[in-house]
Amino acid sequence: MSDSPLTIVADENIPALEPLFGAFGRLRTCAGRTLSPEQVRDADVLLVRSVTAVNQQLLAGSRVRFVGTATIGTDHVDQSWLAEQGIGFSSAPGCNADSVVDYVLAALFNLLAESGDNLRQKTLGIVGVGNVGGRLQQRLEALGVSLLLCDPPRQHQEADTTAFVSLNELLQQADIICLHTPLTTTGRWPTRHLLHADNLKLIKPDAILLNAGRGPVVDNKALLALSKQRPDLKLVLDVWEHEPEVSVALAEHCRIATPHIAGYALDGKIRGTWMLYRALCQHLGRSPEIALDSVLPQAPVTSMTLSPGCSLLEPVRTVYDIYRDDRAFRQMLARGADGIPKGFDQLRRYYPERREFATLALNGQVTPDMAATLAATGFNCHWRQYD
Amino acid sequence: MSDSPLTIVADENIPALEPLFGAFGRLRTCAGRTLSPEQVRDADVLLVRSVTAVNQQLLAGSRVRFVGTATIGTDHVDQSWLAEQGIGFSSAPGCNADSVVDYVLAALFNLLAESGDNLRQKTLGIVGVGNVGGRLQQRLEALGVSLLLCDPPRQHQEADTTAFVSLNELLQQADIICLHTPLTTTGRWPTRHLLHADNLKLIKPDAILLNAGRGPVVDNKALLALSKQRPDLKLVLDVWEHEPEVSVALAEHCRIATPHIAGYALDGKIRGTWMLYRALCQHLGRSPEIALDSVLPQAPVTSMTLSPGCSLLEPVRTVYDIYRDDRAFRQMLARGADGIPKGFDQLRRYYPERREFATLALNGQVTPDMAATLAATGFNCHWRQYD
Ligand SMILES: NC(=O)c1ccc[n+]([C@@H]2O[C@H](COP(=O)([O-])OP(=O)(O)OC[C@H]3O[C@@H](n4cnc5c(N)ncnc54)[C@H](O)[C@@H]3O)[C@@H](O)[C@H]2O)c1
Ligand SMILES: NC(=O)c1ccc[n+]([C@@H]2O[C@H](COP(=O)([O-])OP(=O)(O)OC[C@H]3O[C@@H](n4cnc5c(N)ncnc54)[C@H](O)[C@@H]3O)[C@@H](O)[C@H]2O)c1
Repeated sequence: MSDSPLTIVADENIPALEPLFGAFGRLRTCAGRTLSPEQVRDADVLLVRSVTAVNQQLLAGSRVRFVGTATIGTDHVDQSWLAEQGIGFSSAPGCNADSVVDYVLAALFNLLAESGDNLRQKTLGIVGVGNVGGRLQQRLEALGVSLLLCDPPRQHQEADTTAFVSLNELLQQADIICLHTPLTTTGRWPTRHLLHADNLKLIKPDAILLNAGRGPVVDNKALLALSKQRPDLKLVLDVWEHEPEVSVALAEHCRIATPHIAGYALDGKIRGTWMLYRALCQHLGRSPEIALDSVLPQAPVTSMTLSPGCSLLEPVRTVYDIYRDDRAFRQMLARGADGIPKGFDQLRRYYPERREFATLALNGQVTPDMAATLAATGFNCHWRQYD
Repeated sequence: MSDSPLTIVADENIPALEPLFGAFGRLRTCAGRTLSPEQVRDADVLLVRSVTAVNQQLLAGSRVRFVGTATIGTDHVDQSWLAEQGIGFSSAPGCNADSVVDYVLAALFNLLAESGDNLRQKTLGIVGVGNVGGRLQQRLEALGVSLLLCDPPRQHQEADTTAFVSLNELLQQADIICLHTPLTTTGRWPTRHLLHADNLKLIKPDAILLNAGRGPVVDNKALLALSKQRPDLKLVLDVWEHEPEVSVALAEHCRIATPHIAGYALDGKIRGTWMLYRALCQHLGRSPEIALDSVLPQAPVTSMTLSPGCSLLEPVRTVYDIYRDDRAFRQMLARGADGIPKGFDQLRRYYPERREFATLALNGQVTPDMAATLAATGFNCHWRQYD
């Protein structure tokens, strides 16, 4: 591909296409689900989401030289065929990781406030320390929380293996357990039913168990059985074993239950498009000149002035009221079993605009401790001197 | 009483005593529940809450010349005995009315957002248009909502009787019904079971029924029976027929259920003290020089900057997250029947600090319509020109 104008065909549901790709040439959008070989024949660049299968059948005979998917998953793309053809490819790994971390912190801050507990006095275990888990680790370290990390693939690969513990150790010692592994059924460390009837029993009394990775990583039947015996356990589930089907009984045992939306902040979606923009620039040997911030729309609340009496929850729930999602989910479940798969998908499709903590600027005067906590949580802080 | 220093005895749980009464002379605080004649003998002024019975037994032989109760209710005060003795008296009618109105608006804005409805397209009926109902009327008129008012005592007394409708008309026509009557069992318009099995049936499909007046104004048994047949009804109950006992089954049928805390914003409590301060000044022939604002503590969030994409719910839930109270209440109910009366009282006694909408300054740029809505809701608005 040269510097001449390119034809870009893109899924109409990818946000911020025009500001990021408009200057490359001709931008044409279409429905991703029904994309046909005819629609992509004259394209130089194809941008998709997970609803479009990208393979020989779609692209053979086209001019496409670069494919981007604005998603972290790549199952819908035949990468080896693309590589054989010398077609460039990029996905958007980690684009919504900060959104998931916001979800996790919103859940934990709410539950801990309700029980009168302090996160700094808890031991938190992260299972799966990749894009999401790693960013969660960073924010929690900044918050001064004691961490246990479990990630056998990384442990096996990395020099400092002492940074990691076994899953059983983590389950036995953590007050809060956060699952952020992918779903795998093969290989040396498959994650399907990583948590099962036997090791679930290891979890400490009053622990919080949060899964925002993939549903089948926890045996949901075993989890339901356990939570009937152990009402002390506090469950936070964003992902479910048979999505879009949901065990209503299990949801009833959850303190917070949501329909796989942890990563759904608008910022993450636009960051996905922007990562493809950067990848295309690199593919073309051009330097990317558009900053992510310049294509993010203004947040509904841009700043808040706090005073020393404020709590962490005020800015948190202003940006992300996680219980709103929990209520909408439970209202959908209450409407009845028949409609659950459809209701699940609709809650995801019509998800209201949500932003990341970083979009809210905080100012005013708070205690030094609160100032440090709010900054570590991810807000954009500009404190006045406290005296 | 002259200008010489006074001895003031006050319930230790009345807030802002020192800044408002410190300059009158000697201020002594004590536990209101156990106040004895000995403790008030040398007092010139007695300030109480509803836990102290004020009568001949307590005051005979004392120097007390003025009694104030920092409450809207006066059942605990023998006013005729005070009058006979020429002892001045004041209560704090309406001190927490704005707090109740905030509660009502928070409930309605949340429920309407969840059903995708607009308050301006609804007809709202207010039953009992006194301090609370009247202030609710003012804010709703400013919001441009169609109102129906029912208040037979006022209708009977006032010149413009056309302003009012009958209870049956209101029940038949209103999409939203808000109850703000006192509890009375005698007189021409007793309110006990004002809503009963027969007239509850008149309520329109999908209506919202909110009671933040007194529990027994609605026959709770009949309401439970009705709501089993009419899952379309959306109940918001802050008050219960046999408080501190609560029908768990009825609470489960509520969209929002809370333990008689609608009026519990800190501002209302301090306004109550300040109203007694003003009344004492008047009693002494002095002019009140302390402004209410000067004794209110800073709010945890003092201001927010909004952009055109904001919704009403962001500032509302920043100041008052009504679902927080709903969750705490349901968690208490779930802990079991035995502990409900105690749990009910504890939720009220240890109620977290809450502020009124008026404490939050809003600025930034929003649509003219949103600007008007937020101002009418009660926020302290300073908009930049919208263009
Ligand atoms: N809930 C949501 O909305 C949402 C949003 C984003 C991502 N996710 C999911 O979260 C998961 C993690 O996403 P990511 O972007 O961090 O992925 P990632 O690939 O960057 O990280 C996954 C990590 O899990 C580790 N891992 C693999 N097998 C493991 C095992 N058996 N035990 C412990 N660790 C193991 C890997 O080594 C890796 O470090 C994915 O499944 C993704 O689909 C969910
Ligand atoms: N939930 C709370 O936290 C909370 C807080 C404050 C007040 N309240 C309660 O709310 C109620 C109203 O308080 P207020 O300060 O507005 O009282 P208020 O005395 O100022 O007003 C009550 C109004 O109800 C009217 N009324 C009396 N009988 C009626 C009837 N049969 N039908 C219709 N209207 C009738 C009266 O004429 C009056 O206008 C009181 O019972 C009070 O205890 C509850």
